[in-house]
Amino acid sequence: MKIIVSPDSFKGNMSAPEACSAIEEGITRADKGAQVFKIPLADGGEGTARAVTEAAGGRFIAVTVTGPLGKKIEAAFGLIEDGRAAVMDMASASGIELLKREELDPLKATSYGTGELIKAALDTGAKELIIGIGGSATNDGGIGMLEALGFRFLDEKGEAVGRGGEVLAKIASVDASGADKRLKNISIKAACDVTNPLTGPKGASATFGPQKGATPGMVKTLDAGLAKLGAAWIKAGLAKDTEQPGDGAAGGVGAALRICLNAKMESGAMLVMRYAGFFNRLKEADLVITGEGMTDGQTAGGKLCSVVARESRKAGKPVALLSGALGGDAGALLSSFDYAVSIACGQIGLDAMIRDSKRDLVLAAENLIRAIQIGRKLHD
Amino acid sequence: MKIIVSPDSFKGNMSAPEACSAIEEGITRADKGAQVFKIPLADGGEGTARAVTEAAGGRFIAVTVTGPLGKKIEAAFGLIEDGRAAVMDMASASGIELLKREELDPLKATSYGTGELIKAALDTGAKELIIGIGGSATNDGGIGMLEALGFRFLDEKGEAVGRGGEVLAKIASVDASGADKRLKNISIKAACDVTNPLTGPKGASATFGPQKGATPGMVKTLDAGLAKLGAAWIKAGLAKDTEQPGDGAAGGVGAALRICLNAKMESGAMLVMRYAGFFNRLKEADLVITGEGMTDGQTAGGKLCSVVARESRKAGKPVALLSGALGGDAGALLSSFDYAVSIACGQIGLDAMIRDSKRDLVLAAENLIRAIQIGRKLHD
Repeated sequence: MKIIVSPDSFKGNMSAPEACSAIEEGITRADKGAQVFKIPLADGGEGTARAVTEAAGGRFIAVTVTGPLGKKIEAAFGLIEDGRAAVMDMASASGIELLKREELDPLKATSYGTGELIKAALDTGAKELIIGIGGSATNDGGIGMLEALGFRFLDEKGEAVGRGGEVLAKIASVDASGADKRLKNISIKAACDVTNPLTGPKGASATFGPQKGATPGMVKTLDAGLAKLGAAWIKAGLAKDTEQPGDGAAGGVGAALRICLNAKMESGAMLVMRYAGFFNRLKEADLVITGEGMTDGQTAGGKLCSVVARESRKAGKPVALLSGALGGDAGALLSSFDYAVSIACGQIGLDAMIRDSKRDLVLAAENLIRAIQIGRKLHD
Repeated sequence: MKIIVSPDSFKGNMSAPEACSAIEEGITRADKGAQVFKIPLADGGEGTARAVTEAAGGRFIAVTVTGPLGKKIEAAFGLIEDGRAAVMDMASASGIELLKREELDPLKATSYGTGELIKAALDTGAKELIIGIGGSATNDGGIGMLEALGFRFLDEKGEAVGRGGEVLAKIASVDASGADKRLKNISIKAACDVTNPLTGPKGASATFGPQKGATPGMVKTLDAGLAKLGAAWIKAGLAKDTEQPGDGAAGGVGAALRICLNAKMESGAMLVMRYAGFFNRLKEADLVITGEGMTDGQTAGGKLCSVVARESRKAGKPVALLSGALGGDAGALLSSFDYAVSIACGQIGLDAMIRDSKRDLVLAAENLIRAIQIGRKLHD
């Protein structure tokens, strides 16, 4: 039996590669002869660069960049295909996980470090950039990122406005004349799974601001600021509008990438699956196993595991979900997957579940293969 | 596919028949054509009479009996095989579940009600009695039960000693002359899964006394009392010893049944499986599904589910365990079962797990059948 093992991370608990190993262990216990293809995945947020780089046999380049609140931090990006393409997570330079909950401040947080990461990738000579933009702490419309790449955002007096979401409202014009010339010769793909516009009730600030620490008052300020930024882009002839799906991703970094860096938005899951070689193995696989830490109604609506299920079924392959926890409507879940279990063994308390999650995942995988073996024997 | 569904109860949560229905629902969702044989089981404790009577298409007879602390209560026994055999649970007349925790008192608790239940069964003309003796609240050596059937336990002065574990120490002799004559013409099978002797460090009082509310001091008193009772039986020529396996079951009721009523001890699980028709279906089944509320190291050591597993495998049938919670060593478990999952969906907290347990059990059964179907398709 040939089995693709392609889980997401079990957030806060097991990385996707760790989950792959546990699932492989369970499979092997039940079936020593099984051929296992471990292809850990990510959905465009944290872990995207790692998943793609490791799967593609690339290498990592470490860079010191400016963190979301100005402190220098260590980040890294991957180089794959002999250096032709670079893969990076915005979250590693400007991510919400880099801050403590009480530090979150979308008025101050800047995407500058993400721009530094892009610049470092350009320095390597990479011709293609793949950027996962999930998990950012910022709502600055990407002006920090663009500043690091030579763009300037000016107020009424022609002075640079500075950094953070709070300065957006001062923007009167944008000056692209100093932009890094190398940007013209590269193609950028942004892994993005949201379709929000830049501003308004479904815009970046209203939708994602609160989880980045924005109060209702801040949401208003930030939304008005992004509107000023959008107007400046349009005035400068860089954009026709800021209503394109994904413009509101990552606090407006989606719009900044599309408008100023000519990036193409793609489904994070599909991008990762393609670069990680998922589709190359799918044709020969008998079974696909995916997994994630917590499954709920959202999973059916476009999260990684549902994309894995959709693509597996399109190829006529059965697909199993091994989840940390199954919430929501199990009926809907089981219309997407051929098998969907929680790995939880009925222990009381999150601590115990987390502590034993690796063992439980091994067991869940072993069980699945054993049940399949029962089915095969019924044919004998 | 022909499937035997034979769970134990999910204690404090779902009865065995309820668990059967949930498992059937899940099977049917995955495979409308499946033929399901629902055979709810029990292990000789609570639920034994119900499981056997319902499986055998018998009827229930209600009886008012004396509860463990003297209050009148409603109990019932089953009549099967056109009234030839009666099936009863000691727990329904003298059970620990009939008392609140703070009421537990092995010095006072009496098995008298169990004797009344036997007498009522004799009144129906039944020729065979099957008695599940698990789950008792008593440690009275069965003298209450025997008194209800005409036996007398006397002190040095020839006076009746009364009831409860505390009077055992006064016993000087036993008078069987008034015993119900009908007892001579019936055969009794006691469903019993323990092998403890009547007294000593592995005896009834030391082993099971504490869970019935005995303090260390009470254990000493009760153990000495049972020794006096045993000596009286031997002196009366009724027994050679009180060291037979099972003599210490149900606070000494095991010995009372064996010595005074000529009962045969049998494995509760096997007895129930036989009378419930499990073995009749086993030959034609493709798969056996069992289940219980909580699985731990004890399951491997003789609890119902492990007996179901052992007998299924003996017949060459794959056997799956759907458990409320999987504890202990999963490796040992999976050497007994072909598939063993917890139905828990990763919810935090016992309340939520109990609330959703039916839904979760349906899902677990559906998943199992779906995985088997994957295996069958791999053969196509």
